[in-house]
Amino acid sequence: MTNKINIGIVGYGNLGRAVEKALMNSEDLKLEAIFTRRNVKNIISDSKLLHISEIKNYIGIIDVMILCGGSATDLPQQSAEIAKYFNVIDSFDTHAKIEEHFIGVDEVSKENEKIALLSVGWDPGLFSLNRLLGKAILPNSTEYTFWGSGVSQGHSDAIRRIKGVKTAIQYTIPIKEAIERVRHGEKPVLNDGEMHKRLCYVVAEEDADLSFIENSIKNMPYYFLGYETEVNFITEEEFKNKHRGMSHGGFVICSGNSGENNFVMEFKLVLDSNPEFTGSILVAYARAIFRMYKEGKRGAYTIFDVPISYLSSKKAEDLRKELL
Amino acid sequence: MTNKINIGIVGYGNLGRAVEKALMNSEDLKLEAIFTRRNVKNIISDSKLLHISEIKNYIGIIDVMILCGGSATDLPQQSAEIAKYFNVIDSFDTHAKIEEHFIGVDEVSKENEKIALLSVGWDPGLFSLNRLLGKAILPNSTEYTFWGSGVSQGHSDAIRRIKGVKTAIQYTIPIKEAIERVRHGEKPVLNDGEMHKRLCYVVAEEDADLSFIENSIKNMPYYFLGYETEVNFITEEEFKNKHRGMSHGGFVICSGNSGENNFVMEFKLVLDSNPEFTGSILVAYARAIFRMYKEGKRGAYTIFDVPISYLSSKKAEDLRKELL
Repeated sequence: MTNKINIGIVGYGNLGRAVEKALMNSEDLKLEAIFTRRNVKNIISDSKLLHISEIKNYIGIIDVMILCGGSATDLPQQSAEIAKYFNVIDSFDTHAKIEEHFIGVDEVSKENEKIALLSVGWDPGLFSLNRLLGKAILPNSTEYTFWGSGVSQGHSDAIRRIKGVKTAIQYTIPIKEAIERVRHGEKPVLNDGEMHKRLCYVVAEEDADLSFIENSIKNMPYYFLGYETEVNFITEEEFKNKHRGMSHGGFVICSGNSGENNFVMEFKLVLDSNPEFTGSILVAYARAIFRMYKEGKRGAYTIFDVPISYLSSKKAEDLRKELL
Repeated sequence: MTNKINIGIVGYGNLGRAVEKALMNSEDLKLEAIFTRRNVKNIISDSKLLHISEIKNYIGIIDVMILCGGSATDLPQQSAEIAKYFNVIDSFDTHAKIEEHFIGVDEVSKENEKIALLSVGWDPGLFSLNRLLGKAILPNSTEYTFWGSGVSQGHSDAIRRIKGVKTAIQYTIPIKEAIERVRHGEKPVLNDGEMHKRLCYVVAEEDADLSFIENSIKNMPYYFLGYETEVNFITEEEFKNKHRGMSHGGFVICSGNSGENNFVMEFKLVLDSNPEFTGSILVAYARAIFRMYKEGKRGAYTIFDVPISYLSSKKAEDLRKELL
């Protein structure tokens, strides 16, 4: 195929590597180069690994830049900066700041005649799509989002900041009883702590006060207070052997009704690797926004604005025949 | 609101009534009139009930016609005919004939500067969307569609044609063991009969040969042969009391992987009323195609082509804030 879409990756952590891997399965997309600030030597594919300072050399060559930095510090700077020169897609996921981020990138993209697709992943992302689908089809419905079982980086970090903690990991576990009530159309009023419990594995320093650590975790406001929290102290060896996974998942349940008839719509993900699945989503949506760009669309969009057929490289007729 | 979208309903069976009911929950859509060939006296809403022959009086008044006829005989004629004068949406679901139907309506819609959205419901429809989503995100995935538990009209009809059968109903039941294998990422090769069993309730004529009926059902090619089929003979009274439901549902499971990591994506519906849920989908998509029409789109489309945000009457900014 001569008309491949040229892709660039910015940032080469777990997500960047996942995008690189997903691109190797995509015949219509070509990975042109990976840009990083770090001192990385080896990459998985036979693409080029370049310092971020070389990015402007690829203006007019790379069709879509997939931004794989973090939402805390990278993307708030990078997305708007890179959107001056390239079409971009990012997975910005700090819910409270999405609108601010969107407005900033939208302005830059429009000024520079580019397109940007923001906050793409599974939540925000595929889960958002299902919340919207439920709400639009059943206007009187209630949408519930359960996360897990999976690792929360934010909660793991919070534990690691406690005095006496060497390292730690926190799993978010959806509560079965809550799931069953929602699945059966009960429409209960539930807060986050009634839907999830928190399971912690902590490696303590040699002379640490274990009960201090346990109490500090369980009483930490916002993070653990109000949640059923279990704290387990383990050895460093057990930690290294058993807690390196990146599995995650969760589900969105939309519970609605029309008079006496109940409807329950559920979308569920079980993921061995959170970054690899997110990377696969980004690659499919990179294809989609380049198509929107070629149609003349400019400025920032979200996953809500993209027809699902645009994610596929197949012709509309084939999609109708094979999947409708 | 002065700028409501004016809707017409063609056909006033279970689906037509469901659409009427769903429209009563939609502030931005106005039900202008219901068209039918039958001799119906009462309708649920305070709309107008008219004979189908009056439909042309509403050219220029009704923005979108929701076609609620059956796929066997109504829609193959109606969709293309009504698409000459109106934007239309239908739920044509004879999988093998979808492409032929699409081509026919597409031609008429384009000639007459109208838009048409075809084969909208949950399968084809929301299930198709999820099959496509899975395939586009995970190119090496396998998609499984399970139906039920729910009534299959086609199979019920087939039983009723057997000598000695007064009436009958057939429930399609997904097989738990098959579901669990797929959910666990096994990617088994399964035919329809390995995924579903068939549960039949039959009211026999007074002197009927019950073993003849049972054998005729179990050995009926395509419908029952190759399936685990259970036949229960019941009284007419029990039939009337217990088997009038219109519940249905099913799920699409997409099982993929990237090397050693498995990903399972599942979309599940549990519906007390099949027609009422389908009606709610049609109403949301009627809103969406009118928006596409106003953007200048003409000809036939499917659910694959519609951005999910178009299903909602809310502004993009509010959708980002509330549901992303």
